[in-house]
Amino acid sequence: MPEFRRDPVVGRWVIISTDRIQRPTDFLAHHSSLPVLPLCPFCPGNEAQTPPEILAYREPATSANSPGWNIRVVPNKFPALQIEGDLGREGMGLYDRMNGVGAHEVIIETPDHKETLATLPEKRVEDLFWAYRDRILDLRKDLRLRYVLIFKNHGPAAGATLEHPHSQLIALPIVPTNVTAEIEGCREHYQNKERCIYCDIIRQESGDRTRVVTENGEFLSIIPFARRFPFEIWILPKRHASCFEQIQKFEVEGLARIFSDTLRRLDRVLTVPPFNFILHTSPLHEQAGDFYHWHIEIIPKLTQIAGFEWGTGFYINPVLPEEAAVFLRNAEI
Amino acid sequence: MPEFRRDPVVGRWVIISTDRIQRPTDFLAHHSSLPVLPLCPFCPGNEAQTPPEILAYREPATSANSPGWNIRVVPNKFPALQIEGDLGREGMGLYDRMNGVGAHEVIIETPDHKETLATLPEKRVEDLFWAYRDRILDLRKDLRLRYVLIFKNHGPAAGATLEHPHSQLIALPIVPTNVTAEIEGCREHYQNKERCIYCDIIRQESGDRTRVVTENGEFLSIIPFARRFPFEIWILPKRHASCFEQIQKFEVEGLARIFSDTLRRLDRVLTVPPFNFILHTSPLHEQAGDFYHWHIEIIPKLTQIAGFEWGTGFYINPVLPEEAAVFLRNAEI
Repeated sequence: MPEFRRDPVVGRWVIISTDRIQRPTDFLAHHSSLPVLPLCPFCPGNEAQTPPEILAYREPATSANSPGWNIRVVPNKFPALQIEGDLGREGMGLYDRMNGVGAHEVIIETPDHKETLATLPEKRVEDLFWAYRDRILDLRKDLRLRYVLIFKNHGPAAGATLEHPHSQLIALPIVPTNVTAEIEGCREHYQNKERCIYCDIIRQESGDRTRVVTENGEFLSIIPFARRFPFEIWILPKRHASCFEQIQKFEVEGLARIFSDTLRRLDRVLTVPPFNFILHTSPLHEQAGDFYHWHIEIIPKLTQIAGFEWGTGFYINPVLPEEAAVFLRNAEI
Repeated sequence: MPEFRRDPVVGRWVIISTDRIQRPTDFLAHHSSLPVLPLCPFCPGNEAQTPPEILAYREPATSANSPGWNIRVVPNKFPALQIEGDLGREGMGLYDRMNGVGAHEVIIETPDHKETLATLPEKRVEDLFWAYRDRILDLRKDLRLRYVLIFKNHGPAAGATLEHPHSQLIALPIVPTNVTAEIEGCREHYQNKERCIYCDIIRQESGDRTRVVTENGEFLSIIPFARRFPFEIWILPKRHASCFEQIQKFEVEGLARIFSDTLRRLDRVLTVPPFNFILHTSPLHEQAGDFYHWHIEIIPKLTQIAGFEWGTGFYINPVLPEEAAVFLRNAEI
């Protein structure tokens, strides 16, 4: 029997309907690869192919925009938004518009074209999280900006257009709809119970264990009870904090460890799937300290979105979350 | 300069960023085809391959589940939901669940495997809309059901798994999130202004003309001001009505005419693109008569959804709506 489950944060119902798909290997058809470029703009030696770097973690005595870096942050050469200009808010009859002001940056995760976040040494994954933190702290000085979104598209089916490992950052003058919905759900729970809903989820999942993928002292990795996509994973900090950029050194270590561990399990069970990950953190200048809880969502790209989903915002998840968790928990990594 | 635009109904902002894509033909890479089956379960003569028909428009003196039909409605053989059983609402700690009760039907649009809705004679498109109406009127008798969604996935990139032309119907015991958001937006507009927001959109677009694709006495086809997807089209009835199933005979004729016309323009400009369409109509037993306005949304499947969109609910539309409208308006059909 299929079932409806309700996401406790945003209130969205999903359909868990497992009749059509039985094993993780049923998803393998979605893999594909990108065309090989004659020159990768993100490889060392090709620094001139990108706009000048905003930030780089590099070896001593190497100079900007030359090799010697481990992580390099540059403006997106084809930005969806532009950093210059004012917002130019304007009405047009019924409609509202404003200029596309914002930042669109690329975080090149490693000089090695063939590396992945699952295979990168944990120390280097730590550096990646430090780079995210540095960029958020810098961008929050720009008072036009209200939200910084950090995300990754891995593999062409997940929207990547370049193979070299990279994440992206988009800073927006508007708090996006989904973030607002999440924060409103959290605020309501807090108003009713004086507790953070993610802290409640951590408590229930830690006790129940059926949806736990892996954990360490600082973080918990779970398959959420009611999400849109099969094998979607949340990585939650056990210590309550609303802003990612307030992360402490011991937490960065724990995060790099659980993140690598989780990605290796996904690679093992789903044979190196395309995926997106998204850092969910508090808006830049909003007081959400008590009720919002930052976390990371990892979404393997395994299913097609079609008319039903676009029409309803309703999703059919073909894998029972508890079964996905068993596969990932038992993966030999 | 990219720009932000706000959808006046649901309040969602989109980014219109046209730097990367110039012409409709830039989208052609997304086309692909489905594997050819040895036996099509939707072709005449193969009626035994589907569950028994619920409804068929057929020639006199032909019997159920045999050839002689023009339109045939059957239960989905692999349903996402099941019609039997009660809802079994249940809490599990923080979480809520209920049984996957609902209907999942397939509307086979024509006996001819190679036909499309763009090439079907208009009289036969009228029959399709009559079949939608008949099914909604039948399902609304089941008081467990709150919403009937009718949609079509055309082409594998848009989620179709069978080639033979068909639409789908899913009836749900829950009003879906997106429908609720749309209705709430309409209710708010009505409370502020005592006018239906879609009627206001029709007035503004009919005057402005820059986003009009085509129109006839009963219907208007437009590219909306601020939507998530390039070349998304709305077909709006000029006469205010909240429920599709209250449609009148002369309106069915107008709808079939504008629907065929619009699809032929899309086929011409985007070279027979994959697409979804979704019938947006009022929930079954809700009083939304004054402020909600039924309509059809057609979404060509041209872009990838990736981390940014999943993370934010924010979409980047790479085509200026006014330019898309020019292409479609000028298409030779």
